[in-house]
Amino acid sequence: MATVYKAPLRDMEFVYYELLGGEKLAELPGYEEADPDTVKAIWEEAGKIAEEVMFPLNRTGDEEGCHFENGVVRTPKGFKEAYDLYCESGFTGLTADPEYGGMGMPHSVGLMIAEMMSATNHSFSMYPGLTHGAYNAINAHGSEEQKNTYLPKFVEGTWSGTMCLTEPQCGTDLGLIRTKADPKEDGSYNINGTKIFISAGEHDLTDNIVHLVLARMPDAPPGIKGISLFLVPKFLIKEDDSLGPRNGVSCGAIEHKMGINANSTCVINFDDAEGYLIGKKHKGMEAMFVMMNSARVGTGMQGLAACEQSYQGAVEYARERVQMRSLTGAKHPEMKADPIIVHPDVRRMLLTIRAYSEGCRAMSSWIAQELDQHEKNPDPVRKQEADDLASLLTPVIKAFQTDVGFESANLGVQVYGGHGFIREHGMEQYVRDARIAQLYEGTNGIQALDLVGRKMGMHMGRYLRRFFHPVQEFIEAEMEVPEMNEFVMPLAKAFSRLQQASAWIAQEGMKNPDQAGAASVDYLRMFGLVTLAYMWARMAKIALAKQDGDEAKFYQAKIKTARFYMQKLLPQTGSLFSTIMTGSETLMDFDEEFF
Amino acid sequence: MATVYKAPLRDMEFVYYELLGGEKLAELPGYEEADPDTVKAIWEEAGKIAEEVMFPLNRTGDEEGCHFENGVVRTPKGFKEAYDLYCESGFTGLTADPEYGGMGMPHSVGLMIAEMMSATNHSFSMYPGLTHGAYNAINAHGSEEQKNTYLPKFVEGTWSGTMCLTEPQCGTDLGLIRTKADPKEDGSYNINGTKIFISAGEHDLTDNIVHLVLARMPDAPPGIKGISLFLVPKFLIKEDDSLGPRNGVSCGAIEHKMGINANSTCVINFDDAEGYLIGKKHKGMEAMFVMMNSARVGTGMQGLAACEQSYQGAVEYARERVQMRSLTGAKHPEMKADPIIVHPDVRRMLLTIRAYSEGCRAMSSWIAQELDQHEKNPDPVRKQEADDLASLLTPVIKAFQTDVGFESANLGVQVYGGHGFIREHGMEQYVRDARIAQLYEGTNGIQALDLVGRKMGMHMGRYLRRFFHPVQEFIEAEMEVPEMNEFVMPLAKAFSRLQQASAWIAQEGMKNPDQAGAASVDYLRMFGLVTLAYMWARMAKIALAKQDGDEAKFYQAKIKTARFYMQKLLPQTGSLFSTIMTGSETLMDFDEEFF
Repeated sequence: MATVYKAPLRDMEFVYYELLGGEKLAELPGYEEADPDTVKAIWEEAGKIAEEVMFPLNRTGDEEGCHFENGVVRTPKGFKEAYDLYCESGFTGLTADPEYGGMGMPHSVGLMIAEMMSATNHSFSMYPGLTHGAYNAINAHGSEEQKNTYLPKFVEGTWSGTMCLTEPQCGTDLGLIRTKADPKEDGSYNINGTKIFISAGEHDLTDNIVHLVLARMPDAPPGIKGISLFLVPKFLIKEDDSLGPRNGVSCGAIEHKMGINANSTCVINFDDAEGYLIGKKHKGMEAMFVMMNSARVGTGMQGLAACEQSYQGAVEYARERVQMRSLTGAKHPEMKADPIIVHPDVRRMLLTIRAYSEGCRAMSSWIAQELDQHEKNPDPVRKQEADDLASLLTPVIKAFQTDVGFESANLGVQVYGGHGFIREHGMEQYVRDARIAQLYEGTNGIQALDLVGRKMGMHMGRYLRRFFHPVQEFIEAEMEVPEMNEFVMPLAKAFSRLQQASAWIAQEGMKNPDQAGAASVDYLRMFGLVTLAYMWARMAKIALAKQDGDEAKFYQAKIKTARFYMQKLLPQTGSLFSTIMTGSETLMDFDEEFF
Repeated sequence: MATVYKAPLRDMEFVYYELLGGEKLAELPGYEEADPDTVKAIWEEAGKIAEEVMFPLNRTGDEEGCHFENGVVRTPKGFKEAYDLYCESGFTGLTADPEYGGMGMPHSVGLMIAEMMSATNHSFSMYPGLTHGAYNAINAHGSEEQKNTYLPKFVEGTWSGTMCLTEPQCGTDLGLIRTKADPKEDGSYNINGTKIFISAGEHDLTDNIVHLVLARMPDAPPGIKGISLFLVPKFLIKEDDSLGPRNGVSCGAIEHKMGINANSTCVINFDDAEGYLIGKKHKGMEAMFVMMNSARVGTGMQGLAACEQSYQGAVEYARERVQMRSLTGAKHPEMKADPIIVHPDVRRMLLTIRAYSEGCRAMSSWIAQELDQHEKNPDPVRKQEADDLASLLTPVIKAFQTDVGFESANLGVQVYGGHGFIREHGMEQYVRDARIAQLYEGTNGIQALDLVGRKMGMHMGRYLRRFFHPVQEFIEAEMEVPEMNEFVMPLAKAFSRLQQASAWIAQEGMKNPDQAGAASVDYLRMFGLVTLAYMWARMAKIALAKQDGDEAKFYQAKIKTARFYMQKLLPQTGSLFSTIMTGSETLMDFDEEFF
């Protein structure tokens, strides 16, 4: 019995159009092509590739892993062919600018595809995912020449990209970077240093690999304000844009990891490598943040993907596996035992995963559409509003979704019992692969600090208000609707906790930043839970109006999942509130030597 | 930077003697040798072997795994030598009856050693662990001849044992067993069938392997009441107890798993194997339960071990890793950044693991001592009391401790950031190894059903009262003590929630068993949290009296960890209570086809 995967196209359409009104994006200049029919056709095509090509390579890729020999990395069998198909199908250029050969689709359309690819093959999806990040950074901060040279290759997929931030002595704290960039007479830089944890840092899928490298110039101020961003290709580029000689970039090793074994995680050495400044001197962090923010929403999507893959695998097993009788008497007396889906606790596990999965799809699609609004809406007010909201919720999407993704992957294993621990079934790989998403792109603890330390206080709480106001309005409007009561009341209660906690953290954190730090992770979790409650209440509203129509089952399931969410998952906010309000004392009043 | 391990001997002594009064065990007939000096010397010796022999083999064993070729299983390099040392040091016979060569130590003494072995090498510890289970089953239900033949070999460690329950079509539901036992004329049985997931089912550590096999006789009633237990040795035993020809037992394959790679998980085929009935015909489940109950406390200990190993690894890293400044200003201005142990959220993670680790050590040692009281106390009232309490808390220890063990292992990885994902550091192995303990010996969901479905209602709630009364008395007595207030108040609040939830489940579950099933997992978690709160309040009381003495730091750390537990972990009971009280409707009112 192995896992299964079917692209959740119906739910994607529900979220994207019925819930979020995604058809409005096609009205924005530059997104004219994104009419619903086109978008659905693209998703369908992507779903087919995910199901038929990516999914079968997931377990074989995990078992085989990447090979490293004499500085050369070979990806597992079938990855090159799958990558070529992915490029030919146009997915590498889907959201790229038509100027560079892209299809100009909204990022929110691409993110659904990212979900499907990640759900069927997390390791594979990272190769084009990192190129996408490099595209965004060069597009935002590169020179015209850089854009013209590199972006079309990224769109074709013939060249790929990386993000080179981490060094052995620095991860979170990029101010500690030691990699050096010495200016040369021709305007380029001599790059020297060692980077670690470089995903897709070396592989055999593309002709060239373009590293985006954070490094320090000799005249740089110390710390984070002295970091610049450089473009360092594996092969130098000739005048005619064809490949020249090998640059001073080499892969020193690949890491042996808990999961994502089919993605190469490399040590990359730069020895007098030729690099080119991207953006301004010493302003590398700003350029990098462009990449990091979209990468963080993408990472959140990997959490959602972990929910979805785990849900599908677990439901299939729960229907097939026959064990024990229902507590209320045999449901299938003709069989020797009942399928385990009759047991309340198995249902609790399945519905938990489902409620997180569909809720996260709603939350992240909402914010992805806001990012598109920010990018293309000509109205500066709407643009700013979208940016505020996306800034606020980016750390929540990254951390909350990857946390519940990992929890869901583990619930999926639990549904399988002992069989879940066996590699053959594929469920334990979901756990190992999902684990990385809580760690990379800024650990989830760092996301929580970003939320309480930066986003919360920004512009005197303006970001927060962008979220609080519509939720408040929704609650007030729906409070009067009797059939919405069961959804609105729990939302209102949890929302009030969130508001109180926000006020407390803002006030206490001013006096003592450790108070904010101590509350941060619990607060982010509460934020995610309340956002999902808001999404679920809105989804329930839509479903209530359609529950007697053609797709009665689909909408009834939505209503019931919303109800489950409110009763079984949202109450977590109660404990989180209590814990937050106990403050930082028990954490800080513990002498270092006592540990 | 790799993980570290130092046997937590001081804390073991604190729990075993200062908290639980373990010296009283030496007053029981049969435990006379268990005076504190002897016990401490044994722990010290075990700690040394754990630190110096088992710990270094943990990662190499994981990387190498077990080898399977032509039916033969080879354990990783060094395991045979380590096993021989373990036997020579007397640990295989530590708690065994002196009649069979054992040292007759209390089980609670052995369990501390099991913790150290599991914390340093989960895979290794399972080999002697399973023999210990087989010893208990034969000792309780075997014939005199069986005991005389097998038990001395188990004590020496020259033969080992297994538990053969699971088959492809049955795990939880042992009523579905198909393995057959046909009586032969000489009184032995012909065993035919296939068992899966047999830990230590085949290996190269011992001369013989003795399988305890559940099978069905031709005249057996259907289901669980027709199962008998058989002893099936790999090599037949000659009259003089030397090894005869190979029996019809073979290893068909070993599983490839998420973790515990150095322990062989085998498919065992029985083809006309000669087997001998243990205990009574069709009463195999009763005999097996003896094994399972002690195995469940042992599995809970593996959860505690996961907390301890993870704590030690994470603290070491948090002291050494330098990254970012403290939120309240540089703590080590002479360095480029502060060690991450200054950050509130890192402290939250470390203290969470610590509070679970020390709390679980207290809870499981308490119950282990009760098991010893049950076994040796001549007073039938005290004996029964001990059995009641142990029966009640066994599923809690198994499930709660393995759940928080897994959570702790993951927090340990999180403290390491991206480095936690890299195998070299050893932290991710703790996660993979800890995961199995939530699945085997009855999944944690099954433990929860055992608690609400069997233990709770047993003898009109007598088991529950064995726990509720002393907690109630403690609360009433300490409520008056001002310095205990901060510990007793939260305990009282959580305890009241537990009582209310118990009453609700008992009442509702009578009307509709799905109500009990729906609440079970949340209820067990709440039970574990309240038990730990009771332990922590008692530990705080002891520490308060000693905080100014010679070991001021040790006791102050206890008080502060107790405070942390009450403020930061115990509040989980609030959400659990809310969730329990919403009942089963959202779980059961979800059509099967909707999933």
